Amino acid sequence: MTLSALPPSSGLAAGERRCDERRIAEMLDAIAAISDAGEGINRIAYTATERRAHALVAGWLRDLGARVSVDAVGNTLAEFAGTDPTLGALGTGSHLDSVPEGGAFDGVAGVVAAIEVMRTLAEDGRRLRHPLRVIAFAAEEGARFGQACLGSKAAAGLLGTADAHELRDLDGISLADAMSGVGFDPERMGDAAWDPREWSAFVELHIEQGRVLETEAIGIGIVDVISGSTRLRMDLAGRPSHTGGTPMDLRADALAAAAEVVLLAERLANDARHRGTRATVGQLTVKPNAVTTIPGHVRLTVDVRDVDSDRQRETARDIVREASDVCARRGIGMTMRVIGDISPVVLPVRLRDITIRAAAALGRPYRVLVSGASHDAQMINDIIPSAMIFVPSRNGISHDCAEWTSSSQIADGADVLRASLELLDRER
Amino acid sequence: MTLSALPPSSGLAAGERRCDERRIAEMLDAIAAISDAGEGINRIAYTATERRAHALVAGWLRDLGARVSVDAVGNTLAEFAGTDPTLGALGTGSHLDSVPEGGAFDGVAGVVAAIEVMRTLAEDGRRLRHPLRVIAFAAEEGARFGQACLGSKAAAGLLGTADAHELRDLDGISLADAMSGVGFDPERMGDAAWDPREWSAFVELHIEQGRVLETEAIGIGIVDVISGSTRLRMDLAGRPSHTGGTPMDLRADALAAAAEVVLLAERLANDARHRGTRATVGQLTVKPNAVTTIPGHVRLTVDVRDVDSDRQRETARDIVREASDVCARRGIGMTMRVIGDISPVVLPVRLRDITIRAAAALGRPYRVLVSGASHDAQMINDIIPSAMIFVPSRNGISHDCAEWTSSSQIADGADVLRASLELLDRER
Repeated sequence: MTLSALPPSSGLAAGERRCDERRIAEMLDAIAAISDAGEGINRIAYTATERRAHALVAGWLRDLGARVSVDAVGNTLAEFAGTDPTLGALGTGSHLDSVPEGGAFDGVAGVVAAIEVMRTLAEDGRRLRHPLRVIAFAAEEGARFGQACLGSKAAAGLLGTADAHELRDLDGISLADAMSGVGFDPERMGDAAWDPREWSAFVELHIEQGRVLETEAIGIGIVDVISGSTRLRMDLAGRPSHTGGTPMDLRADALAAAAEVVLLAERLANDARHRGTRATVGQLTVKPNAVTTIPGHVRLTVDVRDVDSDRQRETARDIVREASDVCARRGIGMTMRVIGDISPVVLPVRLRDITIRAAAALGRPYRVLVSGASHDAQMINDIIPSAMIFVPSRNGISHDCAEWTSSSQIADGADVLRASLELLDRER
Repeated sequence: MTLSALPPSSGLAAGERRCDERRIAEMLDAIAAISDAGEGINRIAYTATERRAHALVAGWLRDLGARVSVDAVGNTLAEFAGTDPTLGALGTGSHLDSVPEGGAFDGVAGVVAAIEVMRTLAEDGRRLRHPLRVIAFAAEEGARFGQACLGSKAAAGLLGTADAHELRDLDGISLADAMSGVGFDPERMGDAAWDPREWSAFVELHIEQGRVLETEAIGIGIVDVISGSTRLRMDLAGRPSHTGGTPMDLRADALAAAAEVVLLAERLANDARHRGTRATVGQLTVKPNAVTTIPGHVRLTVDVRDVDSDRQRETARDIVREASDVCARRGIGMTMRVIGDISPVVLPVRLRDITIRAAAALGRPYRVLVSGASHDAQMINDIIPSAMIFVPSRNGISHDCAEWTSSSQIADGADVLRASLELLDRER
C-alpha cells in the first residue's frame, strides 16, 4: 500500500467532507443537556447523570443496528458485524463523564465522531471485513477518585476489585460504593476485562486540550506519545487556633505549609532538569476554613505529568521530599498517598502511520504531537494496538465551561477516523 | 480607697473561693450540648442553635430574679435592680456563638461566670447600689460574616442596617437575611443601641486564647490593650484548564498566586518592622477544586491583628500591594474588599486598676497582658468604660475542639469579676 492509498469506498476528493457537522452538533447538544447543576458540564463518574448519557448513546447505536451491551464497570459497547468472522474487531470511542464544571467536548467528541462514522458507513452501504465496535468508556476522568481511565483500565485488566475498595472521593465515598450506587457490582470488576484475541486495533478521537493545533492552524493531530501521570494526595496536620491569640512563632499553620507545597511543585516543574514536566495542585481543602482560625488541616492533590516516565516519578519523589522538609521545619504532620500512577505510553508506529496516511489521503493538514492528558487509548494500548486522533481546542482550554471545538472540526476528525478504520480494515 | 481595700461583703480570706466550680461546669455542659453537627462546637452566629443557647441562659437569669429582654439584634440583657435608682448599670457578660468547629469556652466562660456571680450575690443576700446587668451578646465571632462583635457593635451604635445588607457569609447569605431567618428585623438595628447614660461600667471575663497565663502559671489576666483587626477578602481569578494539556508557561493558576499571598502575609507579619503583628489566611476556597483542573478561582481571607493601629493598617496595605504585584506578574485578576476593620483599644486605666485591686485583695496572682483577639468589651468601651479579665487557655488553643479551661479556673476568674463589680459599686 502506498502512502497516499485510500480505500476506494471513501471516495472523497481532497478537502471534501463526508461526516455531517450538523448531526454531530445535535448529538453534542443532546449529551450536553445531561448535566448536574453548576457551571459548565457536571457529569461525574459513577453518577446517575453519567449513566443517563450512556443510555442515550446506547439508544442511538441500537438505532444504527448495533448489538449494544453494558459491561460490569459501566462501559457501553456496541458491535456492528463484519463480513469476515475470523477477524478481530476494530474499536473506536471515548468517554462520556466530565470533570466538575467541565466542558461539553472532552470525551464526548470521540464518542459522537465514532457514531457519525458508523452512520456514514451505513448510509454508504459500506460493510467492513472486521467487526466494528464503538465504546463509550465509563469514568475516564480522574477528578473524582484521583485515578483516571477507570473504565478503560478495567477493560485492559488493569483495575481490580481491591482498587474499588481503596479509591475514595473527596466525600470519602469508595469507588466500590459509587459503582454499587449506579447498579454495578464491584466484585465483578474482572468480568469487564477484554480478551485481546477478539480485537485488532483501537482508534480514539479526542479534543487536544492544548493549543498546539490552534497555534499552527492545523485541524488534525496524530498522537505519538501520551503523557503519564503520578497523582499524590497529601494531608497536612497543623494546630488550629485563634488567629488573634496565637503569636506567629507559636503556630503550626497547615495552610502556610500547603502554600509552600503548591509553589515548590510549580518550581520543580519549571526548573531546567524537569523541562516538559507539568505539576499542579488542583484540589486543596482547608479545615476548619474560618476567617479567625489558623488552618489546622489541609488536604491537597498533586498531579505530575510527563512524557518521560523516569522524570515523572523523579519529580513526584522530589515534591514529596521537599514537602516533607517543609512540614518538618514547620512542625506540621504530613501523610502522603499515591492515588494514581500511569506511565507515559508511546503509541505503536504502525498504527500512527495508518492514521497519518488517512489524513494525507484526505488532504487534511495534520501534525504529530504529544498528549499532555491521559486517555482511554493509553490503557487499551496495553492489550490492543491503539492510535489517537486529536482535533483542536479553542485557546487550548479544557476542563472548563470555555472548552470548545467546532462541529466542523470534529467532522473533519471523524473523516480521518473513518479513513483510518477503512485502512486498518484492509490489513489482517 | 487603698490598694488592698475590698468591699467587706466579699469576706474571703486570700485564696478562698466563693464562686462554685461545680455549678459553672454544669452550665458549661448544658450550653455545650447546644451545637450543630460536626467536630467541636458549632453554634454559629444568627442560627437557631445560637438562639437556643440564648433562650437557655435567659431562663437561668429569670430564675435568679432578673428582668430579661432580647434586643433588636439578639443580645440577651438581664437586669438585677440596684438600691440607688440614680446610678447607671454595671454590666458584665460575653457571647454565646462559636466559630465552626470551635470550643466550649470562648465567650461562654464569661456568660457563665456572670451568672455565677449573680447567683452568689443572691445567696449572700448582697444587693449592690448600682443595677447589675448580665449581657449575652449575639454574633461575636467574625467567622461567619468576616466582621466580629456584631451584637456588641450594634449595642455601641457602631453597626447599621446598611452593614446588614452588605455583609455576606461564604454561602452568599447576607447578615440581614440571616437575622430575619431567626426572627430579627435588620431594619430595626438602630433600636439595639445602648444609651450610655444608663450605664456606669462594663467588665467582661473571657478565656485568654493565648498561652501567656499558662506559661507563667498565673490564673488571672488583666487586659490593658485589645488588638485591632483588619480583614480582607480577596478573589483571585485565573484560567482553569487541563493539568495535562496546559504547559507551565501558559498557565494562570489562581492557587499558585494564592499560595504566594499566604506566604507573603506570613512573611510581612514576621519581619522586623511588623513585629507583634499577626496575619493569617484562615479561609481559602478553590474552584473548581478538581485533581485535573488548574485552579481557576480562589477566594481567601486575610486577618491582620495588631495592638498598633497604624501598623495594623500598614500591614494590610502592604499585603494588598504585594498581592497585587503577584497577581500582575502571574496574569491573575484580583479583587479585594475590606470586610472588617476594628481599631486596637487601650482600655481605661481607672477600670484596669480596679480589677487589679480586686485580684490583689483576693490574693490571686495576676498579670497585665494584651489581648490578641477581639472582644465585645472592645466595642462597648466605645461608649462605656470597660475592663477585661482573662482566665487561662490550655496550650493556648482556641477556636478548636481542644480549647479548654477548667471550671475552677473560671470560678477563680468569677471571684475576681465579683470583687471588681463590688469595688465599682463603691464608686459613683
